[in-house]
Amino acid sequence: MYTKILLPESEMPTHWYNVVADMPIAPAPYLGPDGNPVPPEAMLAIFPEALVMQEMSRERWIEIPEPVRDVLRLWRPSPLYRAHRLEQALKTPARIYYKNESVSPAGSHKPNTAVAQAWYNSQAGIKRLATETGAGQWGCALALAGQMFGIEVRVYMVKVSYEQKPYRRSMMETWGAEVFASPTNMTESGRRVLAVHPDSPGSLGIAISEAVEEAASRADTNYALGSVLNHVLLHQTIIGEEAKKQFELIGDYPDMVFAPCGGGSNFGGIAFPFFADKAVGKEVQLVAVEPTSCPTLTKGAYAYDWGDSAGLTPLMKMYTLGHDFMPPGIHAGGLRYHGDSALVSQLYRERLIDAVAVPQLETFEAGVLFARTEGIVPAPESCHAIAAVIREARRCQVDGEPKTLLFNLSGHGHFDMSSFDRFLAGELEDYDYPQEAIEESLRHLPKIAGL
Amino acid sequence: MYTKILLPESEMPTHWYNVVADMPIAPAPYLGPDGNPVPPEAMLAIFPEALVMQEMSRERWIEIPEPVRDVLRLWRPSPLYRAHRLEQALKTPARIYYKNESVSPAGSHKPNTAVAQAWYNSQAGIKRLATETGAGQWGCALALAGQMFGIEVRVYMVKVSYEQKPYRRSMMETWGAEVFASPTNMTESGRRVLAVHPDSPGSLGIAISEAVEEAASRADTNYALGSVLNHVLLHQTIIGEEAKKQFELIGDYPDMVFAPCGGGSNFGGIAFPFFADKAVGKEVQLVAVEPTSCPTLTKGAYAYDWGDSAGLTPLMKMYTLGHDFMPPGIHAGGLRYHGDSALVSQLYRERLIDAVAVPQLETFEAGVLFARTEGIVPAPESCHAIAAVIREARRCQVDGEPKTLLFNLSGHGHFDMSSFDRFLAGELEDYDYPQEAIEESLRHLPKIAGL
Repeated sequence: MYTKILLPESEMPTHWYNVVADMPIAPAPYLGPDGNPVPPEAMLAIFPEALVMQEMSRERWIEIPEPVRDVLRLWRPSPLYRAHRLEQALKTPARIYYKNESVSPAGSHKPNTAVAQAWYNSQAGIKRLATETGAGQWGCALALAGQMFGIEVRVYMVKVSYEQKPYRRSMMETWGAEVFASPTNMTESGRRVLAVHPDSPGSLGIAISEAVEEAASRADTNYALGSVLNHVLLHQTIIGEEAKKQFELIGDYPDMVFAPCGGGSNFGGIAFPFFADKAVGKEVQLVAVEPTSCPTLTKGAYAYDWGDSAGLTPLMKMYTLGHDFMPPGIHAGGLRYHGDSALVSQLYRERLIDAVAVPQLETFEAGVLFARTEGIVPAPESCHAIAAVIREARRCQVDGEPKTLLFNLSGHGHFDMSSFDRFLAGELEDYDYPQEAIEESLRHLPKIAGL
Repeated sequence: MYTKILLPESEMPTHWYNVVADMPIAPAPYLGPDGNPVPPEAMLAIFPEALVMQEMSRERWIEIPEPVRDVLRLWRPSPLYRAHRLEQALKTPARIYYKNESVSPAGSHKPNTAVAQAWYNSQAGIKRLATETGAGQWGCALALAGQMFGIEVRVYMVKVSYEQKPYRRSMMETWGAEVFASPTNMTESGRRVLAVHPDSPGSLGIAISEAVEEAASRADTNYALGSVLNHVLLHQTIIGEEAKKQFELIGDYPDMVFAPCGGGSNFGGIAFPFFADKAVGKEVQLVAVEPTSCPTLTKGAYAYDWGDSAGLTPLMKMYTLGHDFMPPGIHAGGLRYHGDSALVSQLYRERLIDAVAVPQLETFEAGVLFARTEGIVPAPESCHAIAAVIREARRCQVDGEPKTLLFNLSGHGHFDMSSFDRFLAGELEDYDYPQEAIEESLRHLPKIAGL
């Protein structure tokens, strides 16, 4: 009997796993506004070459540079836990495991890619990184990572979050980053918004535009993104690779793997290495869990769409609710994204992975039960995976089936206590997004010749 | 080269170490208001017998019950870190290690004793625990622990903190505790204060009175304290015991051990097991670090005094600034205590341990350097130990002396970001407590016949 399964530092994976190598069909290319594939060179204005190469790579294994591994060792390998107390509370015969990514200094899985991105940029002679952040998880991760390699970090933080979540801002500043409430008057994009709406609360779309504009206009500055892109998911696969080694240590293996899915890096990080086994015939079910209020995979269309609301990014073939879809103000900020990783989308399209949507109240109920049994207060995003696991564990109890379930505890909820507060006070509600509204925003998908 | 030194769960200590067994002189007894030693039976009104026995014990080793160990395994053994990046930033030849107690679900070392106290109370048939909390670290720890053993927890939280730190309150409630802003109108002590000061912001002294009153007046309810008492320090010795095993694994041993010191459980927890080695001739220096604004050991008197401001507790022989000493509103709430553990005090009196006081700004400077090099944002209390370690590491650099330094990273600062915010904005200041003010409050020490 054990609670934690620990890997020694010497067992930390040396390579990332690139799921593209095992996909039956090559990923659809990114397209420009003219409908033609975007050439890699076009991305060099804001990304270092090494990351552009990773974005396009079909190699199965890509080496993790030693300086990146050296920083990751501050918290990795992360522990795999057996959730004995949660199992007992559910009276389930299922064995429930979770990979605890909340142990990173920034409190989530995000630094796994932030550290890699900061390092590749530092090697390319880049002195500054610009990025956007909503609630602040990604901004914190990049601030921390920039500090490790002497890179200045500028974060455009959605103004309403900047004002409502001052502690995430303080954390970024403690790690030396500059944080601005977006829209700012420092960029053309920001000034254009402020001219019309001086009191604009900001949006992720505007903040992305500001960060991209700054990166594109300065030679010493690049842009960094916290999810969606192939290289970001690649850097997260260290999670699933470690989990596989940890299961080997105890002679178990998951029947099902669950992770929250917003942009896809959380899910891809833990699930893709198991997909490698599935590709060679092993039975394992991979389940992306999303909110019913932002049901990209379960109710969206599979189509070419922009990654941002303003249409500045290349077109990506993905499940989307439409780039001007406005998800309700649920508390899992990391899952409020209209689209999804192209890789996750294509695997779902090909029925190689599964998806389920859960309503907000069920996720907080699950999170509170988890906190009261396993001790850790989970991030609202992670609560989605917990809710789906609890559903399955209850099914196992009814069927008397002792399945092995694994989920990614992607982060802690220390900066989300006001959400738990509102849940406990009965002030939260469910938002099921009406099908007609989705159909309406899907009518605005870009019209590209030949698609 | 390694970053973390991990112990497997099977190596978690099975016994707590009782420093009393190795003290050259037996500890001075607790006294009642009449100046006579307090009999153990007097403590049974609010503590279970097992804890009263531990409070009085002279046994060197006391077994940790298996159900307590089972909960501690959720985060223990905690990792020992080598702070390579901090060493590099300081260009010091010193080897700096820290024991990372921030990994507990409550974010500090406090659950080590909370779990033990909750279990012993549950074994004694107690259904509820009452306690007080200032900033909320201890209240969180007891809420978590109570949940693990089916014990209801009521927390009297100092009203000003209740209003200013809503997230610590939310966390306690997420773990199922009831939290009240003290003074309340639920106790005689609270009503008496409110009758005179309806708008009282509360104080730790008032909150203690309310919790003790509730515990003393209800047969199903006991009281729990988060520091100061012998049994609390005993439960924390698992920290130092683990650290010793971890140093054995790598063939190193500290020349100096540092910990923040408020009530003493943080310091006693990591230092006492090393005192056992010192008692048999090993060279190791144990350094308690306190704020210059609340310099109990370095500027207080060694005298009998009350543990609370209202004079409801037994008299303890300790270093004290006087029970009506009002420390300035520094941000390390856990170190704002007028007295100190009787055991720590006596060891200091006998010159078997050392103490140093550091000013507030130096502690935050140290904390920010630590965050930017090692990644983890430390609690303001922990910043005190870091500041003292940095002083010593700089001394090592000047002298070219490669000392091995260990400190207790007692907690993370996730709920203290507003303090870092104010520090970064240049809004914090140092408070050196003037000697005359200390002498004034020392004039109010209790007059006991025969002392």
